[in-house]
Amino acid sequence: MDSRLISYRSIGTVESPFKVPAPPDTMKETVSSIIIDENLVEGLTGLHAGDKILVVFSFHESEGYNLLQHPRGDSSQPRRGVFSLRSPRRPNPIGITEVDLLNIDGNTLTVRGLDAIHGTPILDLKLV
Amino acid sequence: MDSRLISYRSIGTVESPFKVPAPPDTMKETVSSIIIDENLVEGLTGLHAGDKILVVFSFHESEGYNLLQHPRGDSSQPRRGVFSLRSPRRPNPIGITEVDLLNIDGNTLTVRGLDAIHGTPILDLKLV
Repeated sequence: MDSRLISYRSIGTVESPFKVPAPPDTMKETVSSIIIDENLVEGLTGLHAGDKILVVFSFHESEGYNLLQHPRGDSSQPRRGVFSLRSPRRPNPIGITEVDLLNIDGNTLTVRGLDAIHGTPILDLKLV
Repeated sequence: MDSRLISYRSIGTVESPFKVPAPPDTMKETVSSIIIDENLVEGLTGLHAGDKILVVFSFHESEGYNLLQHPRGDSSQPRRGVFSLRSPRRPNPIGITEVDLLNIDGNTLTVRGLDAIHGTPILDLKLV
């Protein structure tokens, strides 16, 4: 066993019109939903429409990484270190995006600003 | 195998004068270091002293969680949902803190504002 291995389970899943990745700024204009595990709904207490929340998610379709990458794949720009970029191709493919919480209904959060595709596993939510 | 299991490996470790948890605001006043895996140093390219960065880390000593908790353990305040709090006792014990990057020297980042104890595994860094 590798003592450095750290494991999590998703707490929910994204429902989005984007089935495959699109430019982040395009995705962020879209309204999408986060469906939270029914057993965890009580943990949403205190979140309200109008809040800003951090959504922590897994780039579940990302495989491998490069330590140096062109920003947003734009080869006209010099390559930079992955830790100065938001690329999904990172050693631990974790995404973090601040979104606007538009509505909560039971275990469904409606949000604007989430650049995550349909089916993305959610790891955590934090009030900003 | 549980298809929801998502595993990561730490990319580095915190060196801090705090060996056990203290109030977050106290810890955030302190200067601490992040030692990055030597094999990943190239990924720091483009980060500079003066930057603000998001540090994503594992609350590695946290065990279990409560869906409703008193903010900062203060029982005079009403309990709230864990996703509206920064408590380490959460379904996936992931911490995210914005820090000031004071210096980079090789694989060592000196930062101010990190509320993570000595030995904390780092999962990711992102330029704000």
